[in-house]
Amino acid sequence: MTRPMLIDATQYCNWSRSIFEEMVAGGLCGVQATVAYHENFRDTVDNLVAWNWRFRRHGDLILPGRTADDLERARRTGRTAIFLGLQNPSPIEADIGLVRVLHDLGIRFMQLSYNNQSLLCAGWTEPEDAGLTNMGKQVVEEMNRLGMVVDMSHSGERSTLEAIDLSRRPVAVTHANPSSWHATARNKSDHVLKQLAARRGMVGLSLYPVHLAQGSATTIEDFCDMAARLSDLIGPEHIGIGSDLCRGQPGSVLQWMREGRWRPPLATEREAFEFPPQPAFFRSSLDFAGLGDGLRAAGFAAAEVAGILGDNWHRFMRAAFEPGKDAPPDAAHDAQVGTSRAFDLATDMPAT
Amino acid sequence: MTRPMLIDATQYCNWSRSIFEEMVAGGLCGVQATVAYHENFRDTVDNLVAWNWRFRRHGDLILPGRTADDLERARRTGRTAIFLGLQNPSPIEADIGLVRVLHDLGIRFMQLSYNNQSLLCAGWTEPEDAGLTNMGKQVVEEMNRLGMVVDMSHSGERSTLEAIDLSRRPVAVTHANPSSWHATARNKSDHVLKQLAARRGMVGLSLYPVHLAQGSATTIEDFCDMAARLSDLIGPEHIGIGSDLCRGQPGSVLQWMREGRWRPPLATEREAFEFPPQPAFFRSSLDFAGLGDGLRAAGFAAAEVAGILGDNWHRFMRAAFEPGKDAPPDAAHDAQVGTSRAFDLATDMPAT
Repeated sequence: MTRPMLIDATQYCNWSRSIFEEMVAGGLCGVQATVAYHENFRDTVDNLVAWNWRFRRHGDLILPGRTADDLERARRTGRTAIFLGLQNPSPIEADIGLVRVLHDLGIRFMQLSYNNQSLLCAGWTEPEDAGLTNMGKQVVEEMNRLGMVVDMSHSGERSTLEAIDLSRRPVAVTHANPSSWHATARNKSDHVLKQLAARRGMVGLSLYPVHLAQGSATTIEDFCDMAARLSDLIGPEHIGIGSDLCRGQPGSVLQWMREGRWRPPLATEREAFEFPPQPAFFRSSLDFAGLGDGLRAAGFAAAEVAGILGDNWHRFMRAAFEPGKDAPPDAAHDAQVGTSRAFDLATDMPAT
Repeated sequence: MTRPMLIDATQYCNWSRSIFEEMVAGGLCGVQATVAYHENFRDTVDNLVAWNWRFRRHGDLILPGRTADDLERARRTGRTAIFLGLQNPSPIEADIGLVRVLHDLGIRFMQLSYNNQSLLCAGWTEPEDAGLTNMGKQVVEEMNRLGMVVDMSHSGERSTLEAIDLSRRPVAVTHANPSSWHATARNKSDHVLKQLAARRGMVGLSLYPVHLAQGSATTIEDFCDMAARLSDLIGPEHIGIGSDLCRGQPGSVLQWMREGRWRPPLATEREAFEFPPQPAFFRSSLDFAGLGDGLRAAGFAAAEVAGILGDNWHRFMRAAFEPGKDAPPDAAHDAQVGTSRAFDLATDMPAT
């Protein structure tokens, strides 16, 4: 019997051999692993070098995920394909050429913002969301061309809607839940989720306590009931799992996620940075397949459960990573991507 | 009739559309283009980004050379495949992980040193050449594994001999001439050239005036007679062309090559940095095929001429770029690569 295609669309664990052993023991064929939160390009390369050594050292457990075929290869060989992703566009700095460079180095997902405003769009914590910036529109186009997934998990509502609208390829929210279930701007409104699905996008349901209605006390019944209601709203084929699992991470990593270098570290005196305990039903990759029992109990058919646990992400990735054509986009799309103030090609200055 | 396979193993021109038009008009199927002389990693990435845009903008003339198949593709489509190379290991800084990163970004040749001592070995201008360093041995092994050509054009004699001896794959001297023809330590001794060929390496004959017996006044007869004598020494199959053409470059580029940032720029007051005029018979890529007439006149058979003008580099590249096995090397080789003072794996300190 073929091993089921289980995919977790977001993890940021304290990577080690035992973490990879849990992935394999849990039957995961694919995991998106976060490579950077606030790093610049150079620091991101250091993180990628660390991944290259991990792939070499733990090649019996993990393999680099570059195309959807790598999911099949992982399934066939009893390993986990690791797809590398960025939760922030900080690694591309202000240079759109670095999107291609990072794609060459294996990056397959990039969030257009992480909590705060980026050069591309607003994060969900900003008081104002002005949508995609000039550079943001250009970067979406470049990501579409290369086959790098536009991930709006941590972006603001308007930015997310604009990215869904502009992107030629389906957009992902790799890790979030409906805000109609747990009201936080970090989760996604029903309107966003419907637009996302209407453009063949995917949402990965999060198991991170802060995104759950009852926090760490959330039960598998609560969680799977939320999934069933979401399925009624957008259909089961647009739902997957993006657990946001941060297994084995110390509080200092939570501080790095929250603060990076964008505010003074004085905040440590006011806030205790400690990861909340995982809900009892999802503590590690070992619990991944068990979500299927909950989903079946919540009324999902077997094929729908298989879809949510991995087949849907598999289908999404097959289309998402296919390299795009270098052909110039059509004029209508050009007009949309073009900066709001046209540039005079002769002078490279904004046209007045 | 199939277009002949013409390959120039080194150019550093003032890249522009007209330079690429000359390559194509000259019938070149492949050119190794230098990407860095003294740049660190980050600056090298900027240079690679500039190449990515060139490939996109001038895709009708050039294509990125990654494997030997790209030479065939260029020949078939009337374009030139550009193979990217580094004349200095400065882009890997002190991090062997960056060899893999730069290979992922398209680098296919790297010199282990450029004139001066590097972290890997000595350059030809150093008064002392202590051979390959600890890191140098490790980097040769990594380049062999990945399929990145070890290029010793600007290295010292002892370093070059040690690299030829240590490398599991044939080594290249992409651009140099025999010092028996023009005595400068920048050219290569007969001993080095024989060792290089004995290990199936290649030398690319240079058309840069400083490497020529009569400088800018050198004639095609002089040059091809040198090639014939070299062929008597090492066989025609180990000879190619690496013109070192720096077409359209201002003197400031020569200054960058010579000085980088390793000595105070005061030297500009003592030295005029101007490229010497090219010999009359080789001013641009348009003159490349004409070398064949000179080689025939010097007594080479037609197949030998075809070999020197490109078939030999083509054969070399076919083997050179094939990815290596990740399998651990054999124990005998390990002992040679291993640092001279063994490391205690428990403490990571040199064993006493």
